[in-house]
Amino acid sequence: MSAEFLNPLEGVQAFVFDVFGTVVNLRKGMYDQLEAKLSAVAPDQDWDEFAEQWRDGDYQRTASVASGGPGPLNLDQLHKEILDDMLATDRWSHLAPHLDDTARHELVLFWNRLPGWPDTSAGLHGMKKHAIIGTLSNGSVRGLVDMAKFADLPWDVVLSPELLGSYKPNPKMYLGALHHLAITSPSQLCLVAAHIYDLRAAASHGLRTVFVRPSARARFPA
Amino acid sequence: MSAEFLNPLEGVQAFVFDVFGTVVNLRKGMYDQLEAKLSAVAPDQDWDEFAEQWRDGDYQRTASVASGGPGPLNLDQLHKEILDDMLATDRWSHLAPHLDDTARHELVLFWNRLPGWPDTSAGLHGMKKHAIIGTLSNGSVRGLVDMAKFADLPWDVVLSPELLGSYKPNPKMYLGALHHLAITSPSQLCLVAAHIYDLRAAASHGLRTVFVRPSARARFPA
Repeated sequence: MSAEFLNPLEGVQAFVFDVFGTVVNLRKGMYDQLEAKLSAVAPDQDWDEFAEQWRDGDYQRTASVASGGPGPLNLDQLHKEILDDMLATDRWSHLAPHLDDTARHELVLFWNRLPGWPDTSAGLHGMKKHAIIGTLSNGSVRGLVDMAKFADLPWDVVLSPELLGSYKPNPKMYLGALHHLAITSPSQLCLVAAHIYDLRAAASHGLRTVFVRPSARARFPA
Repeated sequence: MSAEFLNPLEGVQAFVFDVFGTVVNLRKGMYDQLEAKLSAVAPDQDWDEFAEQWRDGDYQRTASVASGGPGPLNLDQLHKEILDDMLATDRWSHLAPHLDDTARHELVLFWNRLPGWPDTSAGLHGMKKHAIIGTLSNGSVRGLVDMAKFADLPWDVVLSPELLGSYKPNPKMYLGALHHLAITSPSQLCLVAAHIYDLRAAASHGLRTVFVRPSARARFPA
């Protein structure tokens, strides 16, 4: 067989996906929902900035727990804590009176009602015919399931921090995926993600990796 | 609203299913695969009896682990141990020379390539539009995923002993499903099963239950 026909993904049994940003359009989804919910009571807010700070809090807190720090393994709970912290800052405290506890829980659920990129659903349905596809996301089980229904993401399996015992990039996540999918050679598992830190960690355990260009940071796809 | 329009499943957010026997035709699937694989080297065997003994071993070993006994939480490993034990008995030892370790592993995988009942796949696809559907089976994650692909079972989530820490009817299974699906009122979760012991255990934790008639024990549906 000549080299040009070599398939770099030959032998992969399962593809596991980062979800937020990689599979779904986090920034557009958060912007649209925040504006729809809050523009009447709080007009002219920079919802992009709000969503981005929330996302930054997510990165910091999950990284902290992944390296051994305290915090819940359920991302929805973590998102609630970060939101409460944000609404106590000078930058956003003017929003706090409009957001009682019930409303805050509603905002947390915005993370689990994000739209796929234009080609996400069709792409996953196609891949599902040839390999196992699953999440390897920092999202909660229920959040990932709800989002899958919302955005038509036909996962074969949902792997999540509550099930595996930490957040990415803790080794438990990548090794747990190998273990539970009964994959003995790490090169038969492939992580698909838009975030380099995640791919590097997966590769360090021998997984194959696919990098998705991080247009995820744009509110609208290019 | 008049009583005749009351829906006994009103408010159920998620249905979790027993799989072996309930969702797939265990007896026919095992019979057909055993005969296809072994009839040439071992003709005229009672493959029904063979499969039934294996199933009985499964019941006994999972029940033992569920009540605190030793044993692997991965059902495929447990099935391999039971098979090895069976092939060391007077009843089946004549088959042992035909079944090296590789062949035994192939037989173990028969459990994960079982056909759905005639209405299983269409029924699950229909339910999936209205509620979360998932496994709450004693099967392994990988086994349940492989079977879902084989029999077109569109699970939203795969819950399994390796993830929840025991086999049914240990409370960890039912409470773990509630926890990971973030269901606060147990009556919003419903177990569907053909086995009374399983339904009784689920009901004891407040889950709703649906009993499927155990035609599962017949090789062919009535």
